[in-house]
Amino acid sequence: MALKVKRVGVALVGCGVVGGATATLLTRDRELLGARTGLQLDLLHIVDKDFGRAELAGLDRRLFRTELGTALADPAVAVVLELAGGTGFARDVIRKSLEAGKHVVTANKALLAHHGRELFELARRKGLSISFEASCGGGIPIIRALYDGLIANRIDALYGIVNGTCNHILTQMTQAGRTYADVLAEAQGAGLAEADPALDVSGMDSAHKLTIMAGLAFGVGVELSAVPVEGIDKLEPADVAFGKELGYVVKLLAIAQRLEGGVCLRVRPSFISREHPLAWVSGPFNAVSVYGHATGHTMYYGRGAGGSPTASAIIADIVSAASGVAGLFRDTVRVWPELHEPRVLVPEDELELRAYLRLMVDDHPGVLAQITAVLARHRISISSVLQKEMPEKSADPALAPVVIVTHATRQGDLRAAVAELAGLEPVRRPPMLINIIDEHEEGF
Amino acid sequence: MALKVKRVGVALVGCGVVGGATATLLTRDRELLGARTGLQLDLLHIVDKDFGRAELAGLDRRLFRTELGTALADPAVAVVLELAGGTGFARDVIRKSLEAGKHVVTANKALLAHHGRELFELARRKGLSISFEASCGGGIPIIRALYDGLIANRIDALYGIVNGTCNHILTQMTQAGRTYADVLAEAQGAGLAEADPALDVSGMDSAHKLTIMAGLAFGVGVELSAVPVEGIDKLEPADVAFGKELGYVVKLLAIAQRLEGGVCLRVRPSFISREHPLAWVSGPFNAVSVYGHATGHTMYYGRGAGGSPTASAIIADIVSAASGVAGLFRDTVRVWPELHEPRVLVPEDELELRAYLRLMVDDHPGVLAQITAVLARHRISISSVLQKEMPEKSADPALAPVVIVTHATRQGDLRAAVAELAGLEPVRRPPMLINIIDEHEEGF
Repeated sequence: MALKVKRVGVALVGCGVVGGATATLLTRDRELLGARTGLQLDLLHIVDKDFGRAELAGLDRRLFRTELGTALADPAVAVVLELAGGTGFARDVIRKSLEAGKHVVTANKALLAHHGRELFELARRKGLSISFEASCGGGIPIIRALYDGLIANRIDALYGIVNGTCNHILTQMTQAGRTYADVLAEAQGAGLAEADPALDVSGMDSAHKLTIMAGLAFGVGVELSAVPVEGIDKLEPADVAFGKELGYVVKLLAIAQRLEGGVCLRVRPSFISREHPLAWVSGPFNAVSVYGHATGHTMYYGRGAGGSPTASAIIADIVSAASGVAGLFRDTVRVWPELHEPRVLVPEDELELRAYLRLMVDDHPGVLAQITAVLARHRISISSVLQKEMPEKSADPALAPVVIVTHATRQGDLRAAVAELAGLEPVRRPPMLINIIDEHEEGF
Repeated sequence: MALKVKRVGVALVGCGVVGGATATLLTRDRELLGARTGLQLDLLHIVDKDFGRAELAGLDRRLFRTELGTALADPAVAVVLELAGGTGFARDVIRKSLEAGKHVVTANKALLAHHGRELFELARRKGLSISFEASCGGGIPIIRALYDGLIANRIDALYGIVNGTCNHILTQMTQAGRTYADVLAEAQGAGLAEADPALDVSGMDSAHKLTIMAGLAFGVGVELSAVPVEGIDKLEPADVAFGKELGYVVKLLAIAQRLEGGVCLRVRPSFISREHPLAWVSGPFNAVSVYGHATGHTMYYGRGAGGSPTASAIIADIVSAASGVAGLFRDTVRVWPELHEPRVLVPEDELELRAYLRLMVDDHPGVLAQITAVLARHRISISSVLQKEMPEKSADPALAPVVIVTHATRQGDLRAAVAELAGLEPVRRPPMLINIIDEHEEGF
């Protein structure tokens, strides 16, 4: 059957790991992409200041530009790929591209989490699209699932392992009993973690992605600054080991759930049962579990980062933008961030959660009585208490760890109790609180 | 922001489990669907001969029609849902709907596997769309992943657990050591298996789905009759138990893979390692692993059947058809079945696979020597041999099972050897051959 092949001019801004991989895919796999997408994707401009990586990748030097203006002035360019990252220059790139009448494809979660609303509004006014599959979950088509495949659902909850660096570090800590610092250093050496890992290990990158996904899933505006975020940098091998003994593995979970009063978002290191559907997600892999009122549990798994998986999502978005599919979705479904006023989130303190609590105490008679009295005063019901010997190589050989597992408790009460426990004289280190997240129940 | 709400008339043909659930969702959740999809989905006709289920579901009797013609003559109907099943009447429903200028949404894998090409050709000629997300994997948006999210990939392999009845039976056999017949009877009693389970347990339902998914994944025409299909009805608890001892769980896998000479498809009960990414997929759940040259491994998990999950996929397809998205995809990407001539598949016999072989033999000296001589003659290298005692309750207490695990071997040689072994005098029952499927390697 003879079908027309449409030519689509593409400009790429920011030729780092993801930009380089995208340019490589667009040029090396030109024929394959044409045969599958029905579009002739012409990479016309590569905009950056440093072409070191682009040269290493053997990209055509004739495409290199140091000025964005050249690309935007080119009428053959239909789609601009913003792969520069950050929230300054990148914001400018997207604004100027839309002003110049170009569709935008971006992988920039930080920018969308901070300034998405304003940019999507501009795109809508201009009749253009911003596509952002690559912003969450790398090559996993989770954004599409939320605006397309699951559109018939009231989404009740979303649980994501969405930072590959953190999941790699936690997997190593769990499987090999190593320390956070040790695994991080090795991961940096192997290029599996950034030289400055702060955005990843602080949980902030996960919060960016959660904000974007929850906005689509629940059709609500989400204020990033209202999301409680905790990273993995305070986790100790002892907690990983105690958790393991209790049947749990630790994961950095980005969680959004619908409650009677609204939506609650949070990013926290969490214990999940070894039988939990996310427990087997190991190493740099990501996964997002989504609970819909009609589908029940669906889950999306894959490489959440890396040049070539992310480039796969970017190219799917170019097809969506250039074919007009993105515009039709913009004009039809109602889950987009610019359509919903930011909403006050339900505070995490109102959740009822189980918890693991680890205290480092002077090993004196009566200490446990003191601790349990505090918990009782805060109406916290204890499921089990383990008074443990500290693992070898402890920094505090004189202290004894007390591990308490609670029944489901209002998180606010739990945190008040932890604050009080921290002030007890025999409690010699800041208490460690890790929530235990049970498998979400399907709503039908 | 004020956006137009478009009204979309829907006619539903076939009000069984899936049809009833779809009608219920469309009517009960009308407001929710309007708010999320931006479309006012008006269910205008329910066509069937028997309205027992429709009445039980409390659907509006004024919508009941016994003739398709009324619905097709209604100019307000934009989309017809073919949920009648089977390959006779259903084929007629789709043809007539397209002739009447209606888009079609169907859940009918058997029909598409047998007659998809002809129906998609008709839809294209008419400028209409056939959407079929619900045909594979129930509520899991796997079809969308193949034509949209993963479009930038050369797909190298696809491994699916796509029949919930089989996976439920195998999970029970594995976890509780029960017999196939025993679990099946219980599942039928509980409504988890059809009264006539043949299509499911024979593997044919999985083959239908594999044919559809592989067509999109590889952009090839697939002749269903060329796909080797084996069901789960011959599996014995002894094999499940021996596999477990060796570190394997048994799953009915639908596998499509790209080889140098083309594409190979098959449906077989298979042993996979407990560490394999599909090993934890239990009970009625489905999952599909897709390996793309850019994404590496991605996986899609959820309920592969049931009224409400399947209805979720059907409604997503109504949105796609009515918004024009389905038409844009039809006119842009090139993975559709009608665009590719059926292609000769690579025969399974050419694959190099590991295998588990179980023989029931007279326990005489020299039997093992006879067996290993046959294997050696067929150039089959043995990884391990277990001569086992038969589990209790064996039907053949006089016979001894011999379990052989081979290294990777050309499947054709293996099957020739098995045929020869079956003819040996001391081999008293048909040999059982189960391939051991290792985790697919990502191609980058």
